[in-house]
Amino acid sequence: MAGRGLLLVISGFAGSGKGTICKELMQRYDNYAFSVSATTRDPRPGEQDGVDYFFIPKERFLEMIEAKELLEYAQYVSNYYGTPRKYVEEKLLEGKDVILEIECQGALQVKELFPEAVLFFVMPPNVQEIYNRLKGRGTETEEVILKRMKRGQEEAETIAKYDYLLINDDLNETVTRLHETVNSARNAAERNKDLVARIREEFVSFFKEHG
Amino acid sequence: MAGRGLLLVISGFAGSGKGTICKELMQRYDNYAFSVSATTRDPRPGEQDGVDYFFIPKERFLEMIEAKELLEYAQYVSNYYGTPRKYVEEKLLEGKDVILEIECQGALQVKELFPEAVLFFVMPPNVQEIYNRLKGRGTETEEVILKRMKRGQEEAETIAKYDYLLINDDLNETVTRLHETVNSARNAAERNKDLVARIREEFVSFFKEHG
Repeated sequence: MAGRGLLLVISGFAGSGKGTICKELMQRYDNYAFSVSATTRDPRPGEQDGVDYFFIPKERFLEMIEAKELLEYAQYVSNYYGTPRKYVEEKLLEGKDVILEIECQGALQVKELFPEAVLFFVMPPNVQEIYNRLKGRGTETEEVILKRMKRGQEEAETIAKYDYLLINDDLNETVTRLHETVNSARNAAERNKDLVARIREEFVSFFKEHG
Repeated sequence: MAGRGLLLVISGFAGSGKGTICKELMQRYDNYAFSVSATTRDPRPGEQDGVDYFFIPKERFLEMIEAKELLEYAQYVSNYYGTPRKYVEEKLLEGKDVILEIECQGALQVKELFPEAVLFFVMPPNVQEIYNRLKGRGTETEEVILKRMKRGQEEAETIAKYDYLLINDDLNETVTRLHETVNSARNAAERNKDLVARIREEFVSFFKEHG
């Protein structure tokens, strides 16, 4: 069942390891293409334009919204984040499975526009562990960590709308599971309407010959 | 995500190899239990009671319907076929993934009763191949083969209601794909409502402590 690739969305709680999962997926298998998001926020130390994000001015971002050059976008605090449409459509046509690592708000927009998209939500085994991982980084104040936990609580309200929930206990195992799930999704009846139509036509032709 | 097993339905066109797939699945992996159907038809040469089917008299079958001892049942020509409920429920509670190898009519009844069931429809690569495989057996007259093709055409009208379509080109590969799809299905959000509820409760508890 070749042809167009699948559109994949990967979201997750802070500290779920979703970024590492995407990197590992790209390294291990060659069927994936990673969509780089555009953002109006400033680059953090070490972040590269075109790799981590496309860093663009707010005016350009608003132009892109206007010109429908974004597949989805969302605003957090005073910054915009969005998915450039062109790269995604090109790669899907090439047969690549395109990964969007985006937040819940954008994920639900994508599902609305592309019901055949496959949505994954990655999480640590329990809520305490989200806090422990954020704390363990030692880079953020308690106040910021609690804000991110609050955000997590909001996200927990939308996870039931995802297709798959992945508990990331072991990176290698999670990446394998994700990859197998993508391959399974390719065989879903709802993603094979052409096959169903072809089989029906073939029966009609068969009975024209053997009728 | 342990606990209850999954209810699996495997249907397919005549000559799709669904029977062989089920046998291979049972031999390779130990998470499956195979549900033996009950039928009122006579055993064919080589068929064993309790292995291929439970062969029972029509009066007993009608009693079982009445006593709700069947998960689903269907009538073909003058014979009844059905799935005894007790075995299925016991095995699911033991955590086994229970395979029902049943026809479309029963499959849709199962999906109605158990929306969390996973339905697979197995098919050869094309319709001509169904005919070739039936012909190749050399056991049936052209008239019987054409009747089975007609039945296939009716089945083709329901395959879009299945969860997954599997083209059985290569037995080993199909069995692996089916097994991986079952494991993926375990992570579907709709089958993990308890997990979603637990995460939400844990956030509430977290903010009671850190509020």
